[in-house]
Amino acid sequence: MPELRKDPILGRWIIIAKERSRRPTDFVVQEQIVKGGFCPLCPGNENTTPAEVLAYGRNPSQPPNSPGWELRVVPNKYPALVIEGGLNKEGVGIYDKMNGIGAHEVIIESPKHEDTFITLSPERLIDVFWAFRDRLVDLGRDPRFKYVMVFKNSGKLAGASLEHSHSQLVALPILPRMIVSELDGSLNYFKYKERCIFCDIIRQEQREKIRVVCENEHFITLMPFAPRSPFEMWILPKKHSSSYIHTSDFAFAALAEIFSETMKRLDACIPNAPFNFVLHGAPLHSEPLEYFHWHFEIRPKLTTTAGFEWGSGFYINPMPPEDAAVYIREAFAK
Amino acid sequence: MPELRKDPILGRWIIIAKERSRRPTDFVVQEQIVKGGFCPLCPGNENTTPAEVLAYGRNPSQPPNSPGWELRVVPNKYPALVIEGGLNKEGVGIYDKMNGIGAHEVIIESPKHEDTFITLSPERLIDVFWAFRDRLVDLGRDPRFKYVMVFKNSGKLAGASLEHSHSQLVALPILPRMIVSELDGSLNYFKYKERCIFCDIIRQEQREKIRVVCENEHFITLMPFAPRSPFEMWILPKKHSSSYIHTSDFAFAALAEIFSETMKRLDACIPNAPFNFVLHGAPLHSEPLEYFHWHFEIRPKLTTTAGFEWGSGFYINPMPPEDAAVYIREAFAK
Repeated sequence: MPELRKDPILGRWIIIAKERSRRPTDFVVQEQIVKGGFCPLCPGNENTTPAEVLAYGRNPSQPPNSPGWELRVVPNKYPALVIEGGLNKEGVGIYDKMNGIGAHEVIIESPKHEDTFITLSPERLIDVFWAFRDRLVDLGRDPRFKYVMVFKNSGKLAGASLEHSHSQLVALPILPRMIVSELDGSLNYFKYKERCIFCDIIRQEQREKIRVVCENEHFITLMPFAPRSPFEMWILPKKHSSSYIHTSDFAFAALAEIFSETMKRLDACIPNAPFNFVLHGAPLHSEPLEYFHWHFEIRPKLTTTAGFEWGSGFYINPMPPEDAAVYIREAFAK
Repeated sequence: MPELRKDPILGRWIIIAKERSRRPTDFVVQEQIVKGGFCPLCPGNENTTPAEVLAYGRNPSQPPNSPGWELRVVPNKYPALVIEGGLNKEGVGIYDKMNGIGAHEVIIESPKHEDTFITLSPERLIDVFWAFRDRLVDLGRDPRFKYVMVFKNSGKLAGASLEHSHSQLVALPILPRMIVSELDGSLNYFKYKERCIFCDIIRQEQREKIRVVCENEHFITLMPFAPRSPFEMWILPKKHSSSYIHTSDFAFAALAEIFSETMKRLDACIPNAPFNFVLHGAPLHSEPLEYFHWHFEIRPKLTTTAGFEWGSGFYINPMPPEDAAVYIREAFAK
């Protein structure tokens, strides 16, 4: 079973996922994603993944784990955390650990192997955002879990190990440090101003218009003032909302639209850029929060973080977001 | 001039180093380090670097920036921060920024291009640790600087752009977030226990002997209980000391010895592993601190951090440090 361990100085948790263990020499080669060949995420190969937890689009007369689906969610075959068991916490001298209870799932975004997040049709994309919501709601029923981190790794440099378009989620028994920091920072601002800091950011960005990428009725994409890397972008709902699961039905079409436009603009600037995105929202079981605002953060993987970055917590970004925003706003004009 | 910008939610600072800017398409290819060819760090090419700030081993009759040196420190030609100017802080609506005052230097560890940190002779290595100290003392005289981060990127995957063995330092006008977190965490522990947490860790590790890599009279190398990645190692002085610059003369030979042994053991397990190390100590101008303990952190770059890690602040490590410690203790036996 995986293990959660806490750094006694920083309070940072790490996951020891022994099930994924390798011998030292296995770390040497950073291999590319295998192109072509057998794909466990393609229709017809349903029996090579763990049994699905959700599927859209299959004729109800067909059995689960058979072809005919448009989207499919399955447990990760090499999970970072495992779903079975109780949450045992333990001290080891000055150290703390607990067993690695959680869920690790793969959202297979399309039956078509050649689809990418950038070429997905609006219908497929809307289904992806619905699937995130359905899984958040379902996993939120498990009292052991405090947070579900939804994320995507696209391209080998961004950490993907399979070519077939997919995103992932990890349900966690503790609140991630990054979410705690965002909640704390937002709450401090709210105590001082009685306003949501994200709402204030949206207002300032709409006024200044120098870091806005695009917007529609319900959402806005902007480059943050202090981006960690070139072309970092955030997608936020314009109307205050702390939790993704409170998003209303019609907004998923608008979300699919702006996400698609944002990614197509990025692709026009930097073709086939490897990228990650993450969904940040209020913790599971949380009341609606006045001070927090859910959002997606998108980061193309264009720079290497090295000794300085991990030793300091600083990031060095060679491109001001104001410059990157000009490139991306003019992306379709070229 | 570079700019420091603060994320308004997290309080995290980033450096916009426009001087290093590129066009979007320049980010596409992650090129390898050029092997052979012209090396700006080799003897004879001193005029291709900015003028040196320190050199060891050159005959005093020879002028600066001429060959004959054994170690040389020069400003980085493409600095993340610049040394000239005052520290102007400015608000932009809800955002904060300041100009990017600092220093960014390169420690050229040997005149021999083919040397690596693993093959450096004990004398060269002792000089490297002296150079860190000399530069920390010198930059500490500049009242604008609060911290000097010493680090090394070795190998392209670990962020190195030059093959010739070198380390770097960045002097910063604000305390890095990571150092603030370590200071806060250590102080909390001290308030509770009246003991240094690092001293307690050393005692527990010496007792348990399962994560110790090696030790000598003055230093110990161990794998932390909650390592972010496989084969992460810390080198700590056994005697409590909060600041690297308080290290006594004779200890540099012991530091060179244990660092060399540690890196040779790593190399025997994983030949030519790309790696980073960082030096963490008390802030510049700090009194000796009872609660903090300087140390080096070494991380081979063997895993990719992706969406989950940066979205959550969690790390997934596929190898327990107890297993990695067995491999590395037995490295020379193979």
